[in-house]
Amino acid sequence: MAGPVRIVVVGCGAAGLAAATHAKSVNERSKVVVLEKRRYAVYHPCSIPDAVAGLVELSSLVGEPPLATGLEVRTSTLVEDVDVGGRVVHARDLRSGGKLKLEFDALVLATGSKPSVPRGLRIEDSRGVFAVKTLEDAEAIAEAAGKHPSAVVVGGSALGVELAHALARRGVKVALLELSPHLLPGELDSDVAREVEKRLEAEGVALVLGDAATEISGEAGAKRVVTGSGRVLEAGFVVIATGVRANSELARRMGLEIGATGGVRVDERMATSTGCVYAAGGVAEVRELLTGRPILSPFASTAYLTGRVAGINAAGGEARLRGVLRSWVANIGGFKFGATGLTETEAREAGFNALSATVAVRDKPALYPDSRLLTVKLVADGDSGRVLGAQVAGEGDALGALNLAAAAVTGGFTVEDLCSLELAYAPSLSELVHPLRAASEALLRRLGRAGLARR
Amino acid sequence: MAGPVRIVVVGCGAAGLAAATHAKSVNERSKVVVLEKRRYAVYHPCSIPDAVAGLVELSSLVGEPPLATGLEVRTSTLVEDVDVGGRVVHARDLRSGGKLKLEFDALVLATGSKPSVPRGLRIEDSRGVFAVKTLEDAEAIAEAAGKHPSAVVVGGSALGVELAHALARRGVKVALLELSPHLLPGELDSDVAREVEKRLEAEGVALVLGDAATEISGEAGAKRVVTGSGRVLEAGFVVIATGVRANSELARRMGLEIGATGGVRVDERMATSTGCVYAAGGVAEVRELLTGRPILSPFASTAYLTGRVAGINAAGGEARLRGVLRSWVANIGGFKFGATGLTETEAREAGFNALSATVAVRDKPALYPDSRLLTVKLVADGDSGRVLGAQVAGEGDALGALNLAAAAVTGGFTVEDLCSLELAYAPSLSELVHPLRAASEALLRRLGRAGLARR
Repeated sequence: MAGPVRIVVVGCGAAGLAAATHAKSVNERSKVVVLEKRRYAVYHPCSIPDAVAGLVELSSLVGEPPLATGLEVRTSTLVEDVDVGGRVVHARDLRSGGKLKLEFDALVLATGSKPSVPRGLRIEDSRGVFAVKTLEDAEAIAEAAGKHPSAVVVGGSALGVELAHALARRGVKVALLELSPHLLPGELDSDVAREVEKRLEAEGVALVLGDAATEISGEAGAKRVVTGSGRVLEAGFVVIATGVRANSELARRMGLEIGATGGVRVDERMATSTGCVYAAGGVAEVRELLTGRPILSPFASTAYLTGRVAGINAAGGEARLRGVLRSWVANIGGFKFGATGLTETEAREAGFNALSATVAVRDKPALYPDSRLLTVKLVADGDSGRVLGAQVAGEGDALGALNLAAAAVTGGFTVEDLCSLELAYAPSLSELVHPLRAASEALLRRLGRAGLARR
Repeated sequence: MAGPVRIVVVGCGAAGLAAATHAKSVNERSKVVVLEKRRYAVYHPCSIPDAVAGLVELSSLVGEPPLATGLEVRTSTLVEDVDVGGRVVHARDLRSGGKLKLEFDALVLATGSKPSVPRGLRIEDSRGVFAVKTLEDAEAIAEAAGKHPSAVVVGGSALGVELAHALARRGVKVALLELSPHLLPGELDSDVAREVEKRLEAEGVALVLGDAATEISGEAGAKRVVTGSGRVLEAGFVVIATGVRANSELARRMGLEIGATGGVRVDERMATSTGCVYAAGGVAEVRELLTGRPILSPFASTAYLTGRVAGINAAGGEARLRGVLRSWVANIGGFKFGATGLTETEAREAGFNALSATVAVRDKPALYPDSRLLTVKLVADGDSGRVLGAQVAGEGDALGALNLAAAAVTGGFTVEDLCSLELAYAPSLSELVHPLRAASEALLRRLGRAGLARR
């Protein structure tokens, strides 16, 4: 590798940290400075629902930055401007107010995503209305949950579902509002989403589906959420989880090309339209692996991968991102749900001759007391037999099934390849017929019946 | 698919059952008869250590055979001879003594493996000496454990380790004897095996390594095990877990070709030297995926895969086995160990320029109370960068890491491919840097330092 490289990383989330550590790993002599406007360097945003539920301490969500010679994380530091031509970052120390100038050879933009409120939603009174992004948000929600007996969660995203569940676990009466006729639209097919809906209902969460919030009014403790259909939901506080958008203000100021998704355009090396500047994580527009479609992928898994690629290239190494799967999983009190690759709906929309099979099977033999059910939906291309994606829901080993499916999609496996995979077996840990195998075998039969290639 | 096919399956283990159900699945009109000499159709042999440990009821190990029209399991039925030319099975009903003649179009031999006692071991008195294969063996061991305060387990295989641990858990003072200088020779490299050794020692099992049992004498309650080095181990009873061999007596009588491993020679379709006869499971000689080396693979995972291929082909379908990985995992009270693909030792012996990296990392963030450590050793070919195998040991999610590694080996992934895999993440379920990813990144650095291809 080349000589010392000065690298500035903007943002200390999963993408920024991955970029910084991989830059160091590729080039030990690189000097990496991570600039973060928060007062704490590292935290676990994905653990916020668990903290709200009381499963983990809120203070435990703050972590230590990695220690390495030539790797520095500066907190409370806001990047105000980047002189791309002159390769200088202008930042401000939010504690002292002092100005900071940092020269760089390569810069990684990892400003992440920010909560997005739909245009059609008017917030007349923002008291008792919370986003879910920072530890301060989490603290405020936990405090509100201690004060008010009821809440409305707006948005049936994975985060919305997790938050609704967390609040219900704390004894708060929760209504969850989602515009689509099913939860997790775009993330799960409706049949798998139905499993999540059943679980939430069993935990006492009231689901309001196919209806959008249009107005939020009233002071904290007496909030009113009016919906498109004219319904009025009353609650002590409101949590907004209507999705995120790319946090691309700085990128725009820097003159970087922005895609139609609102994310920063990058190539396979995560390089932006300006050669020495890379982007990674929620701010970057990436390509879905199977369709090549430009998307935003705000998941931590994608952030890590893109950060890794950006960091390696920024430090003079060579790495490419072939595309993202949007592998994700959520856990509400032991009931897990998640997906990787394309849903059946997405696959059809993308023009695949998509076929699917769904099974609900045990993850280990019933004779073991911790044997649990898992629903697995596997989607494949009927023409090529290629695995396109998987979705899971249930108390069984969802992560194992999802990660295997992610490997299968990435590896270009056919359904027959998945059926031929030799998985490890111990009855106290797994079924001989792994849930993903059960789904694969069911799908192979369906492919066979449809008269399609048995590969 | 073709018309009705009469299929006889000999043996109702994992291979036989997989053959039977897949034959039905490929050809609904096939008539499948499974002949099993045991008085119970289905049981979980891999759960015997858990039953001995008292974690599950011994009676719960017996299961129900699958129900399907045209699929029959006949228990207490011993196959005495097979007229391959005339396509007739001659069997005997062990209850009534009656003779049975069954015509077939295709036959699947799934007689499994049987416990193997080393030639150098003389058993002078077999009272209080147990093998570990059947439920009756399990019952006898459990009974002995209730009577005698001490035991010697001969053989440091996975089964030997599980049994030693199970007996120790029941309060029996256990010595585990293994000829090799480390446990699990041929299954784990010595560094990973050392983790298992440490765990067993912590549980009070006395390890006697690098020494072989040569003589077992004395009556039950006063057994003496004499070793090659002249050591004398005294114990109430002895369990023999010195491995297994192919149960190929019937195959030999049928005149099937037998390989150097002692297993029945088969092609990729699991067809034996006699076209209409297939073999699967522990009785079949299979090919190791990466080396093509003929091996026996007595694992349930292999039995299922080979049974599936044999059953599909027997019923007129088309399936091929590319090779086996010998994916396996064992669980001793929450501490798991296992492997897939080649160990570093095996890879070197096979002529690969094998490199490895071993990490010991958490499977989820430490802020979660069920966060556990997992040691992962990843082996790759330094020339091509291709993943050759993985070994795991620890309380963390061993199964998830092993199965992912199995997919990587099967898919021909390079270490860089593994690093680029987008795995699902939720902090209550996983680390953002998955243990297998941590091992992959460490190995990629090593490949880089060795000046080898970064792929």
